[in-house]
Amino acid sequence: MIKNTKVNAAILIIGNEILSGRTQDTNTSTIALWLNSIGVRVSEVRVIQDVEAIIVETVNHLKKVNDYVFTTGGIGPTHDDITAQSIAKAFNVEYEIHKEAFKILEAYYKVGEFNEGRQKMVWMPKDASLILNPTSGAPGFSVENVFCLPGVPSILKSMLGGLKNDIVGGQPILSHTISLRTVESEIASSLTNVQDNNKEVEIGSYPFFQAGKLGVSIVIRSENQPDIDNCASQILKFVAEKKIEVVNR
Amino acid sequence: MIKNTKVNAAILIIGNEILSGRTQDTNTSTIALWLNSIGVRVSEVRVIQDVEAIIVETVNHLKKVNDYVFTTGGIGPTHDDITAQSIAKAFNVEYEIHKEAFKILEAYYKVGEFNEGRQKMVWMPKDASLILNPTSGAPGFSVENVFCLPGVPSILKSMLGGLKNDIVGGQPILSHTISLRTVESEIASSLTNVQDNNKEVEIGSYPFFQAGKLGVSIVIRSENQPDIDNCASQILKFVAEKKIEVVNR
Repeated sequence: MIKNTKVNAAILIIGNEILSGRTQDTNTSTIALWLNSIGVRVSEVRVIQDVEAIIVETVNHLKKVNDYVFTTGGIGPTHDDITAQSIAKAFNVEYEIHKEAFKILEAYYKVGEFNEGRQKMVWMPKDASLILNPTSGAPGFSVENVFCLPGVPSILKSMLGGLKNDIVGGQPILSHTISLRTVESEIASSLTNVQDNNKEVEIGSYPFFQAGKLGVSIVIRSENQPDIDNCASQILKFVAEKKIEVVNR
Repeated sequence: MIKNTKVNAAILIIGNEILSGRTQDTNTSTIALWLNSIGVRVSEVRVIQDVEAIIVETVNHLKKVNDYVFTTGGIGPTHDDITAQSIAKAFNVEYEIHKEAFKILEAYYKVGEFNEGRQKMVWMPKDASLILNPTSGAPGFSVENVFCLPGVPSILKSMLGGLKNDIVGGQPILSHTISLRTVESEIASSLTNVQDNNKEVEIGSYPFFQAGKLGVSIVIRSENQPDIDNCASQILKFVAEKKIEVVNR
C-alpha cells in the first residue's frame, strides 16, 4: 500500500454464521467504501467466532495497531450476542446498564414491550458512547477507538452516517479503473514498469468475466488525483501500443 | 463452538481489492461450506494487504494454530501477485520454477503464447504440490498444511474438488435451520435455556427481513444428528407454547 501518513482501520466481523459459510458477509465492503470516502483505509479484516476470549484478545490487538476498529455483529438480545460484554472485558471496565440507551429503548417500544430480551441490548461497557440507530432503535456503541455495530447489513448501513463526526480521516482515497479486453499475462510486464515508475500510487490488476468474455480491470488508487491521472495515461499509452481494446477508462 | 476434537482451518484472503471494498469476497463462503461438508470447521478468516511481510507473518501464525490454511488470491501473472514468493519465504524455501507446472502450462497454451507473464505463474515454493486447475490451466499449490488458491471465484470453485484427498476432516458438520415469524427478543430467554441444556450443539440466532416481514432463523449445528433433532424439538416446543408462527422447520 501507499504512504505511511494514512489513517488505518481494522474491521472485526464477529459471527459463527460467516465462518460456517451460511451467511455471506457484505458489511466489510459497506464499511470499507464508507471509510475510504472519509480518508480511512482498511488495513485488515478478521472474522472470528462468538467466543469471549477470542473477541477480547483480538480487539485488544487490533485497537493497538489501528487508528480505529469497527466490529459488526453480536449486539442483539440472544445468548450468542456477547460483543458488549467482551468489549467491556477488553477495556477492563464494568458491563452495566447504559442509562441513555435504556431511555432510548424505553421510548422506542410500546408500553409492556421493553421486555427482558430487549433490555439486554442496553447493557454496555461503562461510559460507552452511543451510536444511534435510525432503523430499529437499539443503539451501537463505542469505547475509545472501537466502534461496535450490528450485523444486520441494512441496520449497519443506516448507522454509519451518524459516525462521521467521530472519525477523523485523512485525504479521501481516490480510485480510477481502466477495464481492458485482454488477459493479465499480456499486460503484466508493462504494468510492472508503470508501477515501478509510480510508487506513490497503488495499482491492482483484476481479471473479470463478463458476458462470456475475459477482461482485466486495472485499479489505480491514491489520495492524489494528478498522480492517478499521470499513471492512467502511462497505462493507456502501452495499451494503445499493444492495440488492446479499452472497455472503459 | 463445540468439541475440541474438531479439525480446524483458517482462510486467508490476500487482496487489496477486498480491503478497499471494491470487490465483495465470496470465496470465504464457498470454501467454508465445502470444508464443513468434509468435516472441517473454519476457525477464523483474515483479509490482508498484498504486502510480503504481512503475508509471511500471517501465514506463519495461522499454519501453527490451525490444521489447514487456505489462501486465496495473488497467484496470477501481475506485479501485485506475490503469494507464491511470500509462501516460499514463510516456509524458508527457494522460490523457483516448478517443472510439472511448467509442463502443464506449456501444453495448455498454443505455441508462442506461453509468454513471460504466464511463466511467472509456474514460479512456486520449492517442492510445492500442485492443485490442478480444470478451468484456466494455471495450477494452485500447497506446502505442508497451506493450500494456495486463486482469487477468481469461478476458478477457485472448480479447484476445490481436486483437494478432497489432501484434506483429512472429522465428521461432517450438520446443521438444521428453524425459521420463525418473530423477533429475537421474544425468544431470547427460552433459547438461552435450550442452549444451556444442550451444550453439545451450537445454536445461532439470526434476524432476517423477507418480503417486508421480520423473522428469526435459528441455526443448530453439530456433528451429531440426534443431538440436533433433540435440540430442535425443544425449540419447537417453546415456539408452540408461545404461539409463534413457524416459517420453516
